[in-house]
Amino acid sequence: MINSLENHPLYRIAAPRSIAFFGASNRFTSMGTNQLHSLISLGFKGPIYPIHPKEPQVLGLKAFKEVDLLPESPDLAVMVLPTALVLETVEKCGRQGIRQAIIVSGGFKEVGQEGRILEEQLKTIARTYGIRFLGPNCLGVTNPHHQLNTTFLPYTAAPGFIGFASQSGSFLTQLFDYLGVLGLGFSTALSVGNEADIDLVDCLEYLALSPQTKVIGLYIEGLRRGRAFIERARTIVPHKPIVAYYVGGSEAGKRAGLSHTGALAGPDRLYDGVFQQSGIIRANSMTELFDFCWVLGTCPPSRGKRLAIQTHSGGPGATAADACGREGLVLTDFSPATLDRLAPFVPHTGSLNNPVDITFSKNPLDFFQEIPRTLLEDPQTNGLLIYLMLPEEHLRRSLLHQGIPEDQLEDTLDQVIKMTAQSIISLPKNPQKPVIGFTYRSQIDRLIQLLQHKGFPVLPSPERAARAMAALVRYQRIKEVRAQS
Amino acid sequence: MINSLENHPLYRIAAPRSIAFFGASNRFTSMGTNQLHSLISLGFKGPIYPIHPKEPQVLGLKAFKEVDLLPESPDLAVMVLPTALVLETVEKCGRQGIRQAIIVSGGFKEVGQEGRILEEQLKTIARTYGIRFLGPNCLGVTNPHHQLNTTFLPYTAAPGFIGFASQSGSFLTQLFDYLGVLGLGFSTALSVGNEADIDLVDCLEYLALSPQTKVIGLYIEGLRRGRAFIERARTIVPHKPIVAYYVGGSEAGKRAGLSHTGALAGPDRLYDGVFQQSGIIRANSMTELFDFCWVLGTCPPSRGKRLAIQTHSGGPGATAADACGREGLVLTDFSPATLDRLAPFVPHTGSLNNPVDITFSKNPLDFFQEIPRTLLEDPQTNGLLIYLMLPEEHLRRSLLHQGIPEDQLEDTLDQVIKMTAQSIISLPKNPQKPVIGFTYRSQIDRLIQLLQHKGFPVLPSPERAARAMAALVRYQRIKEVRAQS
Repeated sequence: MINSLENHPLYRIAAPRSIAFFGASNRFTSMGTNQLHSLISLGFKGPIYPIHPKEPQVLGLKAFKEVDLLPESPDLAVMVLPTALVLETVEKCGRQGIRQAIIVSGGFKEVGQEGRILEEQLKTIARTYGIRFLGPNCLGVTNPHHQLNTTFLPYTAAPGFIGFASQSGSFLTQLFDYLGVLGLGFSTALSVGNEADIDLVDCLEYLALSPQTKVIGLYIEGLRRGRAFIERARTIVPHKPIVAYYVGGSEAGKRAGLSHTGALAGPDRLYDGVFQQSGIIRANSMTELFDFCWVLGTCPPSRGKRLAIQTHSGGPGATAADACGREGLVLTDFSPATLDRLAPFVPHTGSLNNPVDITFSKNPLDFFQEIPRTLLEDPQTNGLLIYLMLPEEHLRRSLLHQGIPEDQLEDTLDQVIKMTAQSIISLPKNPQKPVIGFTYRSQIDRLIQLLQHKGFPVLPSPERAARAMAALVRYQRIKEVRAQS
Repeated sequence: MINSLENHPLYRIAAPRSIAFFGASNRFTSMGTNQLHSLISLGFKGPIYPIHPKEPQVLGLKAFKEVDLLPESPDLAVMVLPTALVLETVEKCGRQGIRQAIIVSGGFKEVGQEGRILEEQLKTIARTYGIRFLGPNCLGVTNPHHQLNTTFLPYTAAPGFIGFASQSGSFLTQLFDYLGVLGLGFSTALSVGNEADIDLVDCLEYLALSPQTKVIGLYIEGLRRGRAFIERARTIVPHKPIVAYYVGGSEAGKRAGLSHTGALAGPDRLYDGVFQQSGIIRANSMTELFDFCWVLGTCPPSRGKRLAIQTHSGGPGATAADACGREGLVLTDFSPATLDRLAPFVPHTGSLNNPVDITFSKNPLDFFQEIPRTLLEDPQTNGLLIYLMLPEEHLRRSLLHQGIPEDQLEDTLDQVIKMTAQSIISLPKNPQKPVIGFTYRSQIDRLIQLLQHKGFPVLPSPERAARAMAALVRYQRIKEVRAQS
């Protein structure tokens, strides 16, 4: 096992100083052109050398007819070439002294016997020259901390804390928008494709060493090195949580995975066993994978499964309570001291039980400050689920009613929303306990957007919030068990 | 059982010609004021009479000191009063000839023994005067087709086709925004509260008669009249689908429901039985309830469980296939004729299997026209799940490349997106088979927004799309079984 980032074979693939790019032109109907565009538009700092047989310039960069005409041996070659050209190009790169490659081209193992033979030949050539590579049939790497993105779409999110390794390239590039809207982003994301050389286990090892990575997510269609995977994961999990989504469980999923990357899927239970032995938290969808990464990367550790739920509406409270029940979370019986402190805030039509149901509160700010703080300070309570719903039209009316002049209304509203967000964000800091928001408000809601972009997780349903909280509790338990063994 | 809308006790509650409103003032810190504001802001057509002991005007409407000073007997009284005032007010309304009421006030059965006695007294008074009422402890009715909304928040969605009856008022009013963003809306939504008089069974009966209601959704914390519920549902289901979410299944959910509306929840399995006997489709969350209503209200009926999945990316294809597998849906083996028609559109790196994986297509419009049409015309295929991802930045570049001048770019882009949407929307029309989109794009994406607002369902994950498709298949099966029995 490699213990230093700089010595890892992925280091100069995920953080190259210079790049030779094969297969981009000036036509945006070609995939390579789009990928080079992604790279340029993120502002990659080092030199990029497009290799093109005819064009003198590609997307504004000086192009070279052949790789042996380059002024240096770049750290990395990216190839988006027709299958038939890949082998000779790898050989040329080897002769030029290039030692890292991303092979985007498909047409290898995933298409059957002929491709399988070609992939073996590719491996032999790479081995001859000591070239380490990602792919073939992959989209490469997104490392926004290094302004690197070799995938199909421009990176639109902020640099983040989620390390991700995936047997689907789409789940890197097509989720930039998804993550960005939630205020999330990748630290480094790796598309492994057919894993002819570098595989998921190598990626896991690399992401464990990556300083920007707080939590590791894995999209798995089938593991090739099960034992090594388990061993590596076991050493990582006490320091960094790993969340995995395995797709091959059903018969239909299995067949789809096979034709996608040629990965052999096993039965669902087998993977359950693998994840349990490894201390990996299993997600049931991509959505859930990123939900879990979100809370594991932003919340203080959970000390147990006893929760408070705060709401101002019975329905959302009941659904959240039910969701918690189904996830094995327990609603705290509050101490008499907590109940005494709560009483002044909750009208007689509300409920001091757990879920705490405020119904209608005269001072909406109590809902975001005094009440949740009281719940978090309850000694029996390990965390809080809080329902968030602050419609702007109400706030606006309430401000007018308080005498704010019309022409100061929007500014004041803005300030109130920011202050409210600030109150909520500070909740999990003192005492250090996890707080997860849930809402049915859409992504357009300003308070929700603000919270998410400040790193406070707000999930779009009580079920998802409860499952995310359960993942936090589970990770803590895994760490404790590992510490004892 | 009542067979005409006009004879139903809910008719003049859900579609009153005039309203007496108790408990609104000019202070927006009171709940009643907000509710009256909701009513006014939706543009209710008939007269509204605020009753207020002091104010001459309430929110710009002429107010009356007492109900007996009104110029007429309004169809409906809405009461947002302190508990202690409710009984005498109902009595006054009765004497004034009012025969319908919405009692928003809480403090009855849901708060314990004392409230239970009060609720019995309320029922006695109402019975004396022949008053039928919703509540107490409810938010009333949202019927946007009649410009009626007595709930806490202004109705921001369009008038829709989802009939909804709920033991939580929040799930009416706090989901306006949620539904509106998806292009959905309520036909009539009823908050039943403690069900002292009108209950869920009455609502079910009413929604079955409501001409704008295509599908009925129910939020249930506990049924009071199980047998009547089953009988009524069984007669409705062959004509209109019913989807229900039952929250009380877990111990925590049960306790929360009890303190919320005083409903007695039973074990999960009991409700499973109730729903199965009734032919009701069970949802596992509010989100899922509205997902199911969405596709049941917009898609042509499904004739079976054999599906095609179309994608241009392996990962989304594999996850969709897996999700379908878990839902008992089957991926079609395409006929030789279908495969022949598909071949020219799919490059050798793609897959003609099911999921059909286009990988990279030179003409993106094929993806929305020829390819899905071919799949839908396959005789073995009953429906289609289609992955939607059309990032504007790519489209923009591709248009520039085709020679569109910069100053016409945004207009052309707009047209292309509209044309694309039109292609997709026409897919399920000929042949008449259900098509459900899925995407990871956020709500901000223009194509997704346009599709949703034109009534084409796009779900935000393959799992939710697969479950929604399974609900369609299930409803068809239920109808067939009912027709045979």
